[in-house]
Amino acid sequence: MKAKAAIVGVGATPYYYRGESEPQTLFELIDKATLAALDDAGLTVADVDGVAFFAYGHEVGMLTEQLGIPELTFAACVSGGGGGCPGILDLAAMAIETGRAKTVLCIGANQQGKRRYGQTMTNLALTPDNIFHTLAGLPGPGQTLALSVRRHMHEFGTRREAFGEVVIASRLAAATRETALRRKPLTMEEYLAAPMLADPMCRLDFCLETDGAVAVVVTSAERAADRPHKPVHIAASAHGGARDWGRAFFWLNQSAEAFTGSGGGPIGRRLYEAAGIGPSDIDVALLYDHFSPLVVMQLEDYGFCAKGEGGPFVESGAIRLGGSIPVNPHGGHLSEGYIIGMTHIREAVEQLRGEAVNQVRDARFALVTGGPANIPMSGAILSAER
Amino acid sequence: MKAKAAIVGVGATPYYYRGESEPQTLFELIDKATLAALDDAGLTVADVDGVAFFAYGHEVGMLTEQLGIPELTFAACVSGGGGGCPGILDLAAMAIETGRAKTVLCIGANQQGKRRYGQTMTNLALTPDNIFHTLAGLPGPGQTLALSVRRHMHEFGTRREAFGEVVIASRLAAATRETALRRKPLTMEEYLAAPMLADPMCRLDFCLETDGAVAVVVTSAERAADRPHKPVHIAASAHGGARDWGRAFFWLNQSAEAFTGSGGGPIGRRLYEAAGIGPSDIDVALLYDHFSPLVVMQLEDYGFCAKGEGGPFVESGAIRLGGSIPVNPHGGHLSEGYIIGMTHIREAVEQLRGEAVNQVRDARFALVTGGPANIPMSGAILSAER
Repeated sequence: MKAKAAIVGVGATPYYYRGESEPQTLFELIDKATLAALDDAGLTVADVDGVAFFAYGHEVGMLTEQLGIPELTFAACVSGGGGGCPGILDLAAMAIETGRAKTVLCIGANQQGKRRYGQTMTNLALTPDNIFHTLAGLPGPGQTLALSVRRHMHEFGTRREAFGEVVIASRLAAATRETALRRKPLTMEEYLAAPMLADPMCRLDFCLETDGAVAVVVTSAERAADRPHKPVHIAASAHGGARDWGRAFFWLNQSAEAFTGSGGGPIGRRLYEAAGIGPSDIDVALLYDHFSPLVVMQLEDYGFCAKGEGGPFVESGAIRLGGSIPVNPHGGHLSEGYIIGMTHIREAVEQLRGEAVNQVRDARFALVTGGPANIPMSGAILSAER
Repeated sequence: MKAKAAIVGVGATPYYYRGESEPQTLFELIDKATLAALDDAGLTVADVDGVAFFAYGHEVGMLTEQLGIPELTFAACVSGGGGGCPGILDLAAMAIETGRAKTVLCIGANQQGKRRYGQTMTNLALTPDNIFHTLAGLPGPGQTLALSVRRHMHEFGTRREAFGEVVIASRLAAATRETALRRKPLTMEEYLAAPMLADPMCRLDFCLETDGAVAVVVTSAERAADRPHKPVHIAASAHGGARDWGRAFFWLNQSAEAFTGSGGGPIGRRLYEAAGIGPSDIDVALLYDHFSPLVVMQLEDYGFCAKGEGGPFVESGAIRLGGSIPVNPHGGHLSEGYIIGMTHIREAVEQLRGEAVNQVRDARFALVTGGPANIPMSGAILSAER
C-alpha cells in the first residue's frame, strides 16, 4: 500500500544544556523550529492547518497567535509522555488521510528546567499508588526502569558492558555531528568507572537533559512531490500499547519476558505489518534512548535479535555505523541532545534524504521509536520511496 | 454522506459540588463513568482499543492498568481546554474512519479542587505576556471574557436581562432533572440582584464548579446497529479555530465583530457543510455555557439568529423548551453541573435516543459545542438517523 503522507520539512533550534536556552521561552523555541521547518518545506505559516503534539504541548492558541496561523482544522496530541513522539506522525497521517488537514506541523520541545519528568512524577505521587512507589525508592523513571534492567541481566546474563557499548557507540556518532552536546569519545573503562545512580544504571546510562525544539512538516504524498526536498514517506505509523507489558513505572508485569521488555513489541508488529516489511529491511534504527539499556531491550522487541540476545548483539558491534543495524547515528539522547524523541525523527529525515552527517549508505527504510515505559508508546517506519 | 461512526454508550458519575467527590480520585471517577458507559453499550473493557481525551486527560497508562484494557491502538487528546470537548468525538470518528481503532472511549472528568482553570491561568502567568494580563486585572476566564461581553452590549445594545434569561431557562430545565445541582427556580429580580463578579457578569453568569466524570463509547456505524440502544450518529464533527477571532483570553481581536464573538463561526460552517444541513435543521442545541453571555454569542455564531440579535432572540423565549431552538434542556453548566462540556454530549445522546428528561419532541439533529475562548474549539452534529 502506498504511503498517504510524507515529511517535507524539518527544523530545529540549537540543542542547549538544561536551562541554557533561557531567557527564551518554550514558545520561542517552538516558533524558531517551526519557522525553520516551514522554510525547509518551502511553505509558510499560511499553509499550516494542523498541529500535532505529544507530551507537554497543548497551548495551541498561543502557538496560533504567535505564528499567525490563519485557521486550524486539526490540533491534537498523543496522550502521555515521550512514548508518543513518533505518534505525532501517526496523528498527522490520520489528519491527512481523513482530509482533516493538508499541512500538519509536528512539534516537540523541551525546557528541562521548566518542565521535568521528575516534577511530573512528584505530581503523580499525590495519589495513593504513586506515594507507595515513591516511598519504595522509585521516585523517577531511572529508578523504576532499573528494576527491569536488573531483571534483564538476571534472566539473560546481559552485561553492563552492553549498556556501555550503547553509550560508547552514541559518543562515536556524536563526535562528527556539530549539533551534539557530548562529542568526547568514551572508553569502556571510563564507562565502568562512572558513579552508579540507579543500580545497575550508572550516570552515563542516563540521557542528557536538554532544552530545544524540533518541528517537522507533514503533508500528503501527492503534495510532497512538489516540495524542494526529497519527501520522506510515512510508510507506517502506530501508537498505543498492550497491557501485557504493563506500565513499567508503576505496575511491573509479573511475567519474566514482559518484565524485561521495552513494551515496543506490539508497536513493532503493527508497523511491520502495515509497511509490509520486516526488521531485516530496516536500514537505520532511531531508537529512543533515554536510558541505554532500553536500547538493548528495543533491539529485541523490534526484532533485530532474539529475546534475551540483545546484550551479545550490541557487544558484537552490530549497532555501530557499518554494523548490521546502525542505531542512532546522530548520537541520540545519550550524546546529541534530548528533545524527547524529536531528534530521532530529524535524523531519520536526514538519513532518508541522503543528507545525514553519519550517512547510512542507500538508506531506504528508517525505524523511529518512542519512549519505552509509557502507554501510549509509538513508532514509525519512514521510507525514502513512496 | 452517511455517518461512519456512532455513539453507542454513555455513562456518568453523580455530579458533585467542587471537592465533594473526594476522597475518590479523578481516576476512580473516570473508571466509574467508563464502566457505566461500556455497560450501556453492552460492551466490556476487553472491547476497548481506543481512548480520546481533551483538557487534562493524559494518564492513559494508569487508565489502561486500572480498567484492564488489553491493548490500545489509539490514544489521543484534543489539545487545549474545554473548547476541545466535542472534539473528542472528532478524534474518535477519525480513529474509526482510518481503522486505527474499533471502539473508542471518549472521556471527560473534572475535580475542581484539584485541577482548576484558575491554576492553569496562574501557571501560564509565568510568561511575560500572561503576567501582563494578570496584572491588568485579567487573571482568569471570567474577567477576560467580561471584556467581550461588555463589547457585545456596547455594539448591539444587548441587555443583562438576556444573560439572565439564559440562566433562568437553565434553572427551569434543571428543575426536573435529578442529576442537576441547582434546581431551584430563579427570578429575573434575583438574577439582577446577584453580586457582580466581573462586570458585566454577575455571580449567576458564572457556571458551577463541579466534580465528576462522563464517558461515551464510539464505534463504527455498522457495529453500532447491533448495540442495545439506538445509535446516535456523528453526522459531523470538527475542531480547530480561526485566528480572526484571536485567543480571547490573551489576545483580543480588534475587529468589532470578532471581539463580540464566541469564535464558533468557523466550526459551525464546517459542521453544517459536512452534515449537509443548516441551523434550522437543528432540533436541540447543547451550547457550552461556562458563562451565560457566551450562549448569546454562540446562538449568533452558529446561525440561529443574526449577529448582534442574540439578546432579543434569547429574551423572546426562543431557547426554552418549546421555543424555536431549545438550548441545554439538561440545565447545562449553569444549573446541572460542569464536567467541561461532557454533560452536553450526554444530553445530546439522551435527546436523540428519545430518552431525555426534558425531551424535545422528535429530536433528530443535536448540535454540541465546545467552550468558546479556546483554540482549538470544537463542535459536533449528532443525528438520530444515520
